[in-house]
Amino acid sequence: MAEEAKRGREVVEEIESKLSKIKYKLMVISGKGGVGKSFITANLAVATALMGRKVAVFDADIHGPSIPKILGVHGERFPVTSSGIVPVLGPLNIKVVSIDFLLPGEDTPVIWRGPLKFAAIRDFLSKVEWGFADYLYVDLPPGTGDEPLSVAQLVSGLSGAIVVTIPSELSLLVVKKAVTFARKVGVDVIGVIENMSGFTCPNCGKTFFVFGKGAGEKIAKDMGVHFLGSIPIDPRIAETCDRGEPFLIKYPESPAAKALMKITEKVLEIVESK
Amino acid sequence: MAEEAKRGREVVEEIESKLSKIKYKLMVISGKGGVGKSFITANLAVATALMGRKVAVFDADIHGPSIPKILGVHGERFPVTSSGIVPVLGPLNIKVVSIDFLLPGEDTPVIWRGPLKFAAIRDFLSKVEWGFADYLYVDLPPGTGDEPLSVAQLVSGLSGAIVVTIPSELSLLVVKKAVTFARKVGVDVIGVIENMSGFTCPNCGKTFFVFGKGAGEKIAKDMGVHFLGSIPIDPRIAETCDRGEPFLIKYPESPAAKALMKITEKVLEIVESK
Repeated sequence: MAEEAKRGREVVEEIESKLSKIKYKLMVISGKGGVGKSFITANLAVATALMGRKVAVFDADIHGPSIPKILGVHGERFPVTSSGIVPVLGPLNIKVVSIDFLLPGEDTPVIWRGPLKFAAIRDFLSKVEWGFADYLYVDLPPGTGDEPLSVAQLVSGLSGAIVVTIPSELSLLVVKKAVTFARKVGVDVIGVIENMSGFTCPNCGKTFFVFGKGAGEKIAKDMGVHFLGSIPIDPRIAETCDRGEPFLIKYPESPAAKALMKITEKVLEIVESK
Repeated sequence: MAEEAKRGREVVEEIESKLSKIKYKLMVISGKGGVGKSFITANLAVATALMGRKVAVFDADIHGPSIPKILGVHGERFPVTSSGIVPVLGPLNIKVVSIDFLLPGEDTPVIWRGPLKFAAIRDFLSKVEWGFADYLYVDLPPGTGDEPLSVAQLVSGLSGAIVVTIPSELSLLVVKKAVTFARKVGVDVIGVIENMSGFTCPNCGKTFFVFGKGAGEKIAKDMGVHFLGSIPIDPRIAETCDRGEPFLIKYPESPAAKALMKITEKVLEIVESK
């Protein structure tokens, strides 16, 4: 056991050293899946890069790695250079690290059971030559169970957590759990982002609150954390995610893209003024 | 270890005996969270009861038990009778068993770590006096990892699995995993239900495929399983779920309710003709 604990400390130190040239590390979490967490992580990364920062994304969603698909680098493999394994370069030179770059085919995830997946995550963090970046966004597995907890604990020195939710009242409890989760890993909550918050009919211009209304803002207030903003539903989001074209670059003039830019500005402001 | 294995067999036998008066047992699964699995499970149960069957629902989603809220029995406690602990009775006399009926408050789930939660599930199945029912719907935790697998393996004699998905292309892989999952626990896949498949503007009548189009049907075809139908997006679904009024009873004339009834008819037909 003492041997194991020693090995554990060594791994954490190795990870710290590999991530030492990254200024700010943020994790993106959600109490449950299906709220668009990966879409938001990918587009926060794009927005941050558009604002002149060097950005890296770590896709720690081992169950369903979707960052590479959303950023258009699905199917790539880790480049091996003279200095070691380096991240895949996505749009705007965003550094991307994901289990996806190791999987031989689409059916593979089933084979990667818990402990193996965790070992892979640990190795990504401790063996990849991350190099310099202003921002690292870590897309955690959905939920607030043991698995995302273990992953979050591997990344030391996190600057904060961004919580993604949908506006339904059922998510109140889920967001509470996400905030508790962040506290467990000892990081500040930067704020709450409400996704899928209303659909404006492109034909007649009327807005419908398909998944409820305003819960994100209410929850943020209740929990005493920043409300970072809401992102409306846009059918082109699913389209761009499926095609691997970053939404922000493809439809910069859309209300959803503008909301994402504003949210990112707030995030950078909060993080950099700390 | 031999002792443990013996105890394991005993538990499975105990569960078998408690569930012996239930004719058909179906599990409802999804490769990822946020696809509306619990909404669909609850409303399949309501539709089945409306069709004259006796119905029970087992909410095995320990991470976020939402069946009680959707069926309007959130906050209830297990009744203890002379014959033992019995299910809570929901609308149309649907028998409901959920970890929710044991939780003292809204913040509690965080305390229930993996092994404890699993033990609770095991006890629900082996200790509750389930009694007679034509149908038992088991709402499994989202995902296809070790936890839902363990839960699914506790319920022996399953008649089949119903897979819930959303229509985006990203869900292709996820549904494949769900089918593999069903095969792992040795149950037939009854079919695929596509949820959130298009939003018809209540103002102008135009339909928008907010989360993509047709992936559910395509996947079902590819995997050689039945396509059970699609359920359109309806803002009143989130509303009724938040308020605990079964959508099918509240808005029976809505397209989503009609789709749910048709899907349930298909499910009953497939299950009862086997």
